[in-house]
Amino acid sequence: MNNVNDLLHSPEGLKSYLPDKAEVFFHLKERIEEIFKTWGYRPIITPMLEYYDSLLLGMEQKTKKDFYKIIDYEGNILALRPEMTAPIARTVSNRMEELNLPVRLSYYAPVFRYDSPQMGKNREIFQLGVEFIGKNSFADIEIIILLIEALKNTGLKGFKIDLSHTKYIEGILDNKEINENIKAEIKNYLIQRNYVALKNYLASNALDTDLFLKRGGIEIITDVEKKVNNESSLLALKELRTVYENVKEYGLEDYISFDLGLIRGLGYYTGLIFEGFTNNLGYTICGGGRYDNLVEKYSARKVPAVGFAIGLERVRLALEKKELEFINNKNKIKLLFSREGKKRLFKFLSNIQDLNLIFEIDENKFIDKKLIDNYRKQRFNKMILFKDKEIELFDLASEKRFTLYNQEELINKL
Amino acid sequence: MNNVNDLLHSPEGLKSYLPDKAEVFFHLKERIEEIFKTWGYRPIITPMLEYYDSLLLGMEQKTKKDFYKIIDYEGNILALRPEMTAPIARTVSNRMEELNLPVRLSYYAPVFRYDSPQMGKNREIFQLGVEFIGKNSFADIEIIILLIEALKNTGLKGFKIDLSHTKYIEGILDNKEINENIKAEIKNYLIQRNYVALKNYLASNALDTDLFLKRGGIEIITDVEKKVNNESSLLALKELRTVYENVKEYGLEDYISFDLGLIRGLGYYTGLIFEGFTNNLGYTICGGGRYDNLVEKYSARKVPAVGFAIGLERVRLALEKKELEFINNKNKIKLLFSREGKKRLFKFLSNIQDLNLIFEIDENKFIDKKLIDNYRKQRFNKMILFKDKEIELFDLASEKRFTLYNQEELINKL
Repeated sequence: MNNVNDLLHSPEGLKSYLPDKAEVFFHLKERIEEIFKTWGYRPIITPMLEYYDSLLLGMEQKTKKDFYKIIDYEGNILALRPEMTAPIARTVSNRMEELNLPVRLSYYAPVFRYDSPQMGKNREIFQLGVEFIGKNSFADIEIIILLIEALKNTGLKGFKIDLSHTKYIEGILDNKEINENIKAEIKNYLIQRNYVALKNYLASNALDTDLFLKRGGIEIITDVEKKVNNESSLLALKELRTVYENVKEYGLEDYISFDLGLIRGLGYYTGLIFEGFTNNLGYTICGGGRYDNLVEKYSARKVPAVGFAIGLERVRLALEKKELEFINNKNKIKLLFSREGKKRLFKFLSNIQDLNLIFEIDENKFIDKKLIDNYRKQRFNKMILFKDKEIELFDLASEKRFTLYNQEELINKL
Repeated sequence: MNNVNDLLHSPEGLKSYLPDKAEVFFHLKERIEEIFKTWGYRPIITPMLEYYDSLLLGMEQKTKKDFYKIIDYEGNILALRPEMTAPIARTVSNRMEELNLPVRLSYYAPVFRYDSPQMGKNREIFQLGVEFIGKNSFADIEIIILLIEALKNTGLKGFKIDLSHTKYIEGILDNKEINENIKAEIKNYLIQRNYVALKNYLASNALDTDLFLKRGGIEIITDVEKKVNNESSLLALKELRTVYENVKEYGLEDYISFDLGLIRGLGYYTGLIFEGFTNNLGYTICGGGRYDNLVEKYSARKVPAVGFAIGLERVRLALEKKELEFINNKNKIKLLFSREGKKRLFKFLSNIQDLNLIFEIDENKFIDKKLIDNYRKQRFNKMILFKDKEIELFDLASEKRFTLYNQEELINKL
């Protein structure tokens, strides 16, 4: 059964991040969380494992093999959560009386995708996201602005948020003249994003490609409005236009585009849906939408909601390709001490709380060329050697060496 | 099989944190991570799931049922990690050539304990910890000082770090005059921390209780040194004294005590071991020790190492019992807008990056008593209503109302 030859490696599809990558990763996380916090979104933690049946409530279109499953001591089937919206809807439903709706929630969480046994695809995905639960009006607009502001704050440029609306395609397909099999086939192509095949299929069934596959700026909404003649699709287009006009008023319309053929994989969306792309990565970096019926499945109470998730690793990759400049502007110092200088080092350490330093301590008697080369390579700014009677400071940038006799002199030099 | 009646709840032993708790939790996490970062510890991420056999390498004394296990598509047995030291030792071994030893690593990670099906015990545990890999001298001292500084930085007072040493008890038991069965029995009592039973058992076998169960300040090291006559135990006591003397030189000796009967559950420790307690909680809040043989099991390369983990939830509980004052000193503002005032609101939002605000946006035409009471309860500091021609500011502390006509006037009032 067990084909592991080498206990050294991570299991298939699971990765480690060493410090150079992990620092960038957490730096980007902080930049995004800063915006979430500013906009009043407060953190929530839900368990890594949920009841399998509870997760399925929100995900009709997912196949059951997509989960890492476990049977617990109590005989229940649990699964590692594949996304955070259903667990949060479940938790909010469970503890509604402790929460003051509407509620703005944010999370950072690993989720698990188990659908791709092929090489190279990540099975553990780090998501940062928000859920705005209990409000309808203005919430869609706030969520789109928040998403753009959060991505901008990472330093990412040249990204687009593609907007769509579940009720648009539903309206088009709610047409007695289209055969049920054809409808199902169209939906399949849309879910698989197989747009070339869909185009051919639509043509061979004498259906208007432009109704299903229109992509572009705000002008396509105007174009399509002229062709559509069902209420539901027209209302969807109107909602999309309202979001766009508000985002434009805010000044972020350059980040918005439309993709009316966009259908998201999860079954719970009921209105606005969206995905974000950068022009240098072949996959989405974020996605979300409105889900007004999901909380009801857990609580029998109808509560409107909208949210999104950002794939943190994908944002990191998008920035990496553009030669991310991750600047750690803290003062990074190597602290060395001789046996007799340790007391001075300890005294120094208890006086530097406010100096915003990063240091590393080692025992050593000299600052010689080999040490200097070594610590320069590790990007230290300064080396300080605490000796019996004096303190030696070597500045790795200026290559200047100072001899100091007390803590004040030293702190003034930092 | 499935006895879930209610899909609303978290699975047994798994919990959610709503924002009031989660904010405190992450606040404490930041306080601890601040110290880790300052002392040069850099983040590492390892996968949530590891090969079961790989985890077992480090944990001889654990029973196999303590893991949440999964069989993956490739037929391997995986498990949710029950702690982080073995996964980090595995990762460091695997990627030794990318790392510059010695290396200081830190992590924040959920780990999973599956050994207690009884009610109320957490199965998902949030740990913050460090591993200092590749160094021997001074590292034990640095790790103990770092642990105390990190706990102090959370605001926690009145905690103690109990020090012990694996080679101390090993030396005492490495005695031909003690029967093998009796040795095994003594070890069992120590692992179970059943000190009352052990005391009786030692007495009935005419063994000196003081050699096994001595607890207290530095004076007990002196006491026990007089009684011990094996090299190994004496060397262990000397190492403990060195750690104490250095921590005293640093000025943190009040946080140190000794418990020579302390044996930690994991099999990989080889030297200094320790656990932290507060006087108001009945269980450990942190623990760690030296493990000089663990990296070797993965890499066939002998690499000394020492580290610890802090249980973040237990630190939160310890502080909660002491009436934790969690002060969010950010300026929390409710932003309201009438339809005609939205443009002013948007302009305001694009001008406040440096003001360090937390805000929540809602559509509303008036600031009335009901709203004021509501937002005061939610601990907002101010309410701002953006209207067609003016901006209304209501200060919830002073109860003063201001009418303002432009952004500069408004920003000056914040």
